[in-house]
Amino acid sequence: MSKRPFRSPSSRTARSAAGREAAHGYWMYGLHAVEAALRNDRRHLHELLVTKEGLAALEAKQVPVRITPNIVERQRLDQLCERDAVHQGVLLRVEPLTAPFLDEILEQREGPILILDQVTDPRNIGAILRSAAAFGAAALVVQDRNTPQEGGALAKAASGALDSVPVLREVNLSRIIAQLQNAGLWTVGLDAGGTRLDGAAFRGRRVALVLGAEGAGLRRLTRESCDEIASVFMPGSMESLNVSNAAAVALYELVRAG
Amino acid sequence: MSKRPFRSPSSRTARSAAGREAAHGYWMYGLHAVEAALRNDRRHLHELLVTKEGLAALEAKQVPVRITPNIVERQRLDQLCERDAVHQGVLLRVEPLTAPFLDEILEQREGPILILDQVTDPRNIGAILRSAAAFGAAALVVQDRNTPQEGGALAKAASGALDSVPVLREVNLSRIIAQLQNAGLWTVGLDAGGTRLDGAAFRGRRVALVLGAEGAGLRRLTRESCDEIASVFMPGSMESLNVSNAAAVALYELVRAG
Repeated sequence: MSKRPFRSPSSRTARSAAGREAAHGYWMYGLHAVEAALRNDRRHLHELLVTKEGLAALEAKQVPVRITPNIVERQRLDQLCERDAVHQGVLLRVEPLTAPFLDEILEQREGPILILDQVTDPRNIGAILRSAAAFGAAALVVQDRNTPQEGGALAKAASGALDSVPVLREVNLSRIIAQLQNAGLWTVGLDAGGTRLDGAAFRGRRVALVLGAEGAGLRRLTRESCDEIASVFMPGSMESLNVSNAAAVALYELVRAG
Repeated sequence: MSKRPFRSPSSRTARSAAGREAAHGYWMYGLHAVEAALRNDRRHLHELLVTKEGLAALEAKQVPVRITPNIVERQRLDQLCERDAVHQGVLLRVEPLTAPFLDEILEQREGPILILDQVTDPRNIGAILRSAAAFGAAALVVQDRNTPQEGGALAKAASGALDSVPVLREVNLSRIIAQLQNAGLWTVGLDAGGTRLDGAAFRGRRVALVLGAEGAGLRRLTRESCDEIASVFMPGSMESLNVSNAAAVALYELVRAG
């Protein structure tokens, strides 16, 4: 067993490819996201563009503005953002973060691990990160090939959580599920047809929660890798939730009883 | 007290204005949304455009295709949809639904009432409707002026729930909160600084849950109108959830203990 048992062999390649694509980083926008990036010493910053009001908002929250801001007109920010982006007068060009190793996370951070199998929408992933932070999850693990890279829409939806919850990109989710099981975690796949998810049943055990894609649910191999399949109690007429809502409710159920 | 105590005097005006704007309806897309509209006899249909595969998918689910479908190429559907819309080969031009009266809902449908004060994002509203259906809420009440009308993105995010959960547009939320209180409901505002939301505490009582806008939370008047203010238990570092996630967790907490 290597010193870094959880790093997959292909991670380095995947990471350098992502690095090339994002050689100059990306524009992060919105007060909460930009505040969290400025407060995160591990976050490499390139450029801060703000309106006068945006800068005043950061200063009012005593955010350490550790890069010289360029004060510009709102229109300039509108042009740099995605359409309809609510930038709140602050744009920060940043490098994506480098994820820590999973064994470091398991040692240093408490709470459940959340695993997403092929959730592709950046806003859903961002909202899930925000819930992960709210409910004290240790990390988010995503399937590398089908998950968008860090970007403005994801960071905005995460509302700062991108700089507090580590995101690990993994090529093979079945393998990481096995690695978590070896490390003593109980892996619960959230899908239709399972027993009712009950947080109290996991008291004293550390849980990894696995969620599948919208509609399709968990892939067969991922499903079969889990220790058990559970379903959120839903007495109504709808058979499934939006994936970020399912993640929020499941995380809540885990920590509620704790 | 009039025979329809819950209909606000201005509802009729608001409704006709909306009717004029949407004289020819809107394009609903996505299999779940279109299926639910086709299955809903109260939903007035104008036009159904499908690819061969889209029609086959409806037929495989034995959906009553109660309007003659026009079979077209996928590109035609792409053009009619919003950018990046996942239409799944089915587009249905429909009239927005006319909401029932609140007193009818309270008599005929079980479950909590959900009230949204100035939630403006169609995808969030759609996801909230989907959760409302999943957790058996009786209806969704929205603030009329600041809430988008029924539309494709909202219907897609609702995944069919737009045709199963009634949506009531109200001008004055404080007044409707008072009306619900008069009808015997316990109104709970979800906001920071409240006591911990505990579904078991409401057993035997019918609850109306009031949620505010992203970030801003509940407006003062709305907040003061509620019987109590409660907060979702969040042991982590984030102070708030995405509004659709907050709605899902709160609804879950209400029905979980039921």
